[in-house]
Amino acid sequence: MAALPLQFPPPGSADDIDLASLRQAVGVALREFLHSKNRTADNPRLSPLIEVLQDFVAAGGKRVRPLLCCCGWYAAAGSGAFAPVFQVAVALELFHTFALIHDDMMDASETRRSRPSVHRALAAGFEGHRDAHTAELLGRHSAILLGDLALVWSDHLLQTSALTAVQRAAVLPLLDAMRTEVMLGQYLDLCHAGRAGGDVESALQIARFKTAKYTVERPLQIGAALAGASPDTLAACTAYALPIGEAYQLRDDLLGVFGDPALTGKSALEDLRAGKHTALLAIALRNADAFEAAVLRRLVGDPTLDENGAAAVRGVLTATGAREEVEAMIRSRRRQALGALDRSPFQPAARTALRALARTTTERTA
Amino acid sequence: MAALPLQFPPPGSADDIDLASLRQAVGVALREFLHSKNRTADNPRLSPLIEVLQDFVAAGGKRVRPLLCCCGWYAAAGSGAFAPVFQVAVALELFHTFALIHDDMMDASETRRSRPSVHRALAAGFEGHRDAHTAELLGRHSAILLGDLALVWSDHLLQTSALTAVQRAAVLPLLDAMRTEVMLGQYLDLCHAGRAGGDVESALQIARFKTAKYTVERPLQIGAALAGASPDTLAACTAYALPIGEAYQLRDDLLGVFGDPALTGKSALEDLRAGKHTALLAIALRNADAFEAAVLRRLVGDPTLDENGAAAVRGVLTATGAREEVEAMIRSRRRQALGALDRSPFQPAARTALRALARTTTERTA
Repeated sequence: MAALPLQFPPPGSADDIDLASLRQAVGVALREFLHSKNRTADNPRLSPLIEVLQDFVAAGGKRVRPLLCCCGWYAAAGSGAFAPVFQVAVALELFHTFALIHDDMMDASETRRSRPSVHRALAAGFEGHRDAHTAELLGRHSAILLGDLALVWSDHLLQTSALTAVQRAAVLPLLDAMRTEVMLGQYLDLCHAGRAGGDVESALQIARFKTAKYTVERPLQIGAALAGASPDTLAACTAYALPIGEAYQLRDDLLGVFGDPALTGKSALEDLRAGKHTALLAIALRNADAFEAAVLRRLVGDPTLDENGAAAVRGVLTATGAREEVEAMIRSRRRQALGALDRSPFQPAARTALRALARTTTERTA
Repeated sequence: MAALPLQFPPPGSADDIDLASLRQAVGVALREFLHSKNRTADNPRLSPLIEVLQDFVAAGGKRVRPLLCCCGWYAAAGSGAFAPVFQVAVALELFHTFALIHDDMMDASETRRSRPSVHRALAAGFEGHRDAHTAELLGRHSAILLGDLALVWSDHLLQTSALTAVQRAAVLPLLDAMRTEVMLGQYLDLCHAGRAGGDVESALQIARFKTAKYTVERPLQIGAALAGASPDTLAACTAYALPIGEAYQLRDDLLGVFGDPALTGKSALEDLRAGKHTALLAIALRNADAFEAAVLRRLVGDPTLDENGAAAVRGVLTATGAREEVEAMIRSRRRQALGALDRSPFQPAARTALRALARTTTERTA
């Protein structure tokens, strides 16, 4: 592969990690990379497929994983070439793109980032010259293939970054752990869908696999490992990441039900229709009286749930105190993460950036 | 990762590549690897998922891609450590496992290797405590995740093989090309499904992407690149691989319609029901008279096609001369491949083995 046309900010001085510029640079790098892939495929039949991926990636995203990867490198006092580290960070975002595409397809989510989800965009491309059912099916199946393609390309991006042999050896087990954990977390999520129950612990276990480890711990550790982090530093990554990652998922659960679709870019009905086994719902079921429990059991998991039904569920989630309890859980986990940060051996600049990320990931509205 | 507990035959003398032992060793290595992955996951909820993958891999397969990879290494006079080469070969088989799982799910294939396909096996695990529709859906979605898992694990196997930096650099572009080509080939296949037409060239183009490059050319080149093959040797791989790979797919097309399910382990109705755009069908449509064309257009692509309908289609495929023409195309491509082999700079032992593989892949009944 030709060298990735990287445009990234310089590593920055010790007291300034420019998260906004880094976030923007991730978007630019992804755009350039996919553009070069499309050019290489050089096939008029395939371009429309690859363009759906390009559009999806260009539509934004919080780029949390690449930012955490870069922060991990700064945290462990990374020195030497930043370009390979940044390329790994970009690869994590493309891996996440794969995960979102498959996830939306399985959840039958209609929108993502305020646009049609990838399987819907692909289905639209088949409409007009296929009947509606066939177009829908071809959209779903193309989305599987396009997700697979994002995954193998993310891997290519990662494997062609100019890491030293020591960096590669440090990163590979973390990468494998991350990729395995997210699949297994998704599987646990799948097994519980439509079976929301009062078991808060199992909901938190899914959050740990799916989000805390995949979204926060592993990207941070991968960055730190690239800087040659000691076991102590890697453990400090975990001490910060697991509570902040759980808080991230708890915020996601709240936004999935109480969020403003205009801000989240996702429907506020889908999680309820799917009957996702979240801590929010588990707490509500645990606290509910007989009437409230009946409302939840009747409405949550109903694929035809409408806005009125959703409003009734939101009422119960609030009345049972579940909403407030989850807010309190988020606060407590953030406090725990910030404490871990204070005790960490991380570089001051990274501590500042991770403190900011703790705030934006847990207080966000989108 | 702990070293893969490899059990493989020694590189062999110059005039003896023991394909049968290699094939067996691939199965053993996969079994050991997945066993260690299951042990590491160490979660009673996840073991049943991983066991479905273990069972699928244990149920056999021709192991064509790992054998070709090993042959490529021998062909280019590989010397030095064989273990890393073998580990790459095993990784190719696990990658193919991923491809089959997703492919069967998309094609809604009920059986593979004379057993329920992976999504069916997974659906069966949900039956009993879920309604039939939900079990079916969960089976399909779990199969996507399990396929994804096979893909990332195949990558881990490959990336942790003890290649030299030179070997890695030689292999990565070929690996990326292989993985990209198969996805794009599958996508072209998808776009044409249910639209079988008389365009033989487009059917052959799909065969080139999906099979000739993915199954034969790239595995052979990857093995050769591991041995430090020259551009001439890599070109000789292509000269052998593309015709033999097309012949492989043409044989597959014939077996998909005329094969004995007891031998192929697959239904002889599915290709016809799906309306796969194969060269076989394209030639039949091109040669058909009005009555024959009407039979094909009515029956091929009908998802409820039964044995009587299939027999009628087979009659037309034979009467139009399409079956015999495809047999002739297979023979001509094999001759071309064997000629390329004779002119190749390959080591004699590899030539013998590749001659044998040319025979078994094009004359096979399963």
